[in-house]
Amino acid sequence: MERQFADLMQLLEERRFAALRDALQEENEIDIADFLESLDAEEAAVVFRMLKKEMAAEVFSNLSADTQKVIVDSITDQEIVGIIEDLYVDDAVDALEELPANVVKRILKNAKPETRNLINQFLKYEENTAGSIMTAEFVDLKRGMTVAEAIAHIRRTGEDRETIYTCYVTGPSRVLEGVVTVKELLLSRDDQRIEEIMDDDVICVTTTEDREEVARTLAKYNLLSLPVVDQENRLVGIVTIDDAVEVMEQEATEDFEKMAAMSPSEKPYLKTGVFTMARKRFMWLLVLMVSGMITGGILGQYEAAFASMPLLVTFIPMLTDTGGNAGSQSSTLVIRGMALSEISTKDLFAVMWKEIRVSLIVGIGLGAVNFVRLILTYPGNEMVALTVTLALVATVLIAKTIGGALPILAKFLKADPAIMAAPLITTIVDALSLIIYFTIASHLLPI
Amino acid sequence: MERQFADLMQLLEERRFAALRDALQEENEIDIADFLESLDAEEAAVVFRMLKKEMAAEVFSNLSADTQKVIVDSITDQEIVGIIEDLYVDDAVDALEELPANVVKRILKNAKPETRNLINQFLKYEENTAGSIMTAEFVDLKRGMTVAEAIAHIRRTGEDRETIYTCYVTGPSRVLEGVVTVKELLLSRDDQRIEEIMDDDVICVTTTEDREEVARTLAKYNLLSLPVVDQENRLVGIVTIDDAVEVMEQEATEDFEKMAAMSPSEKPYLKTGVFTMARKRFMWLLVLMVSGMITGGILGQYEAAFASMPLLVTFIPMLTDTGGNAGSQSSTLVIRGMALSEISTKDLFAVMWKEIRVSLIVGIGLGAVNFVRLILTYPGNEMVALTVTLALVATVLIAKTIGGALPILAKFLKADPAIMAAPLITTIVDALSLIIYFTIASHLLPI
Repeated sequence: MERQFADLMQLLEERRFAALRDALQEENEIDIADFLESLDAEEAAVVFRMLKKEMAAEVFSNLSADTQKVIVDSITDQEIVGIIEDLYVDDAVDALEELPANVVKRILKNAKPETRNLINQFLKYEENTAGSIMTAEFVDLKRGMTVAEAIAHIRRTGEDRETIYTCYVTGPSRVLEGVVTVKELLLSRDDQRIEEIMDDDVICVTTTEDREEVARTLAKYNLLSLPVVDQENRLVGIVTIDDAVEVMEQEATEDFEKMAAMSPSEKPYLKTGVFTMARKRFMWLLVLMVSGMITGGILGQYEAAFASMPLLVTFIPMLTDTGGNAGSQSSTLVIRGMALSEISTKDLFAVMWKEIRVSLIVGIGLGAVNFVRLILTYPGNEMVALTVTLALVATVLIAKTIGGALPILAKFLKADPAIMAAPLITTIVDALSLIIYFTIASHLLPI
Repeated sequence: MERQFADLMQLLEERRFAALRDALQEENEIDIADFLESLDAEEAAVVFRMLKKEMAAEVFSNLSADTQKVIVDSITDQEIVGIIEDLYVDDAVDALEELPANVVKRILKNAKPETRNLINQFLKYEENTAGSIMTAEFVDLKRGMTVAEAIAHIRRTGEDRETIYTCYVTGPSRVLEGVVTVKELLLSRDDQRIEEIMDDDVICVTTTEDREEVARTLAKYNLLSLPVVDQENRLVGIVTIDDAVEVMEQEATEDFEKMAAMSPSEKPYLKTGVFTMARKRFMWLLVLMVSGMITGGILGQYEAAFASMPLLVTFIPMLTDTGGNAGSQSSTLVIRGMALSEISTKDLFAVMWKEIRVSLIVGIGLGAVNFVRLILTYPGNEMVALTVTLALVATVLIAKTIGGALPILAKFLKADPAIMAAPLITTIVDALSLIIYFTIASHLLPI
């Protein structure tokens, strides 16, 4: 890949445009998009204009929003309309959503009426729903067709369809009646009727379904595409597996970001500006800093204790770190389990009961190591060793129970479980572990 | 789904087996597998034996390893062999890998020689490679065939292929020469030759390629299947998109687990035993607890300082929490960016330079809030406020630079970047922030 780019780059630098045009012909559209992303705006526009019409739309749909804007600014309205007409409607809508309103208006004015209507309809679906990621280019069969007729229909109309491999059978008013794959068509006799071979128990979703749920359904049933129907069960679009894969990657990335106390980003790391990045990180750090101050305030209550026995302070990092880590382990497993639909809100008590047992095993194990270490390092301070050990076991128990429960409780309150991740859990557990520690210390030690 | 299960469950409880058998016929294989998972071992075996032969293999391949064992123990060797013969070779190998060696031996002894040879060959590929997730059931065309001949070939042999939609063209000794999709076949004239319409620039991987890279290639190029070749470029198998999706989900889950300081688990949360879970969590907690002790030791060096000014201790949680959170934000973005191939080792300095700038903006913002708050809360203690604020800014700067750099350095050392996540970063930053804090304090304050 890198090598190919070097070749293309050399042709560009030497301004051997005819040779470059020929070389581009041989490349995959996705690699060309990568190549354009590596160029500056002016060069990208020059190279894009060299692409043959058949390639231009697919390369365009694989560009980042920023580069799409560069291209749109550098070509005529007529050329833009040509690309938009060639795109599948989901890609056209994605591109238009990123362009300034006046440009969109101008493009739609010049587009064919049916394209305009379709795009206007698709622009209305809410973000993150099935409607927002579906496309309208599917193969539509009728139950009365024979297999030979269906295959002829596909051969005639298949060119512009995003996928031909799963065909949908619709009745009057486009109501979804069945599904049949090209594999089934090819393996059937030519004179069989579609209604004999179609599966009428169709797995489908409605336009308002969450896109994450859509992706999970495609993955669960190993489907290549999933039909999307409106409230009246009329087929309005399909979501293909490649779009579902992209949704899964984006949703996982968003969860990673939220779980590390950041607002989700829209662009790859290296393409995100410094100020945008700072903004996405600042709010949560501020909230957590204030929580840290509260924890500090709690610690302030025990000033007399650690003034009289400064040794106690040196165990605080070990206690709070272990509490935070123990809690994040549990919350991470539960958040991920919920994202994969393996854990639901009804499992709250099962999760807590499991966490209590796990935390007792882990806590007592860590406590034992800790006790032995303290006895060896500080001989004669058995009561300090006992205090720290008891606080450690209690901290692990509470950290894991809270870490397991809070993501589920967040879901109960219709909040995103992913916010109940390491950073927030650590802050909560920090405060609790200090209270436990000094309460035990005040009972066992002469402070 | 839940409702369907209730119906099936009722039939099972009332022991209306004929009705249950009919009801199962109407269900999707994946839903039946879910239903079996919800039953106890004995019931699952009873229900499984009711399935028609055509369904049995697919239901079996969608069961968890534990339930597969239950089924294998409850049916005859002949029945097992029947299922193994019906499975695609990747699913057969997955199932066999989980069974006891003597059972595998018995099954293979009874299988057809070609199945046995194929399975033995596939069992040899290393875990997490392309070879370990590929299957052998693909459509194989020759360059001299006409489109009509190719379609006839697919209609004749397609039944047993895992996918027919992407066909591979092979030459002498099975060398991969080209690829053609069923869409292209259907849209071409019957008398065109395969070599005229095939794409001879095939995107493919070798058997030893990492499975994560395989999944990413399928996703990047929007492919439905990816050919796998040996060192001599001979086609030995294909990886289909549904297996790639599963790999992507598993790899993301593993990263979540590693980044929360756990060994990756093989089973869903609710199905993992308490002792297994404790084991997967204990080691890292122990390592991090020992690191926490070292941090405590560092803190011990400053005992005199906080004995003379106990107020200083109360700012420790805020400082270490903020440092840990700031560092985890950076390390999470970089680890995820590397998992998605958006960041590579050559970007080390670009990442560090970005993190330094972001951390200065974020650090100065947080520092300002912090300074104002301290001036208001502790009037007359300007030098304390200044000490804490400077320590905070320096901590954020160091935390983010280290958080961004360490995952990349781990990759340099051929280690998994995911271990350089929140828990380890927090521990490292904790120690550094305390050293910075007390060093600044010893210069600015009378301690």
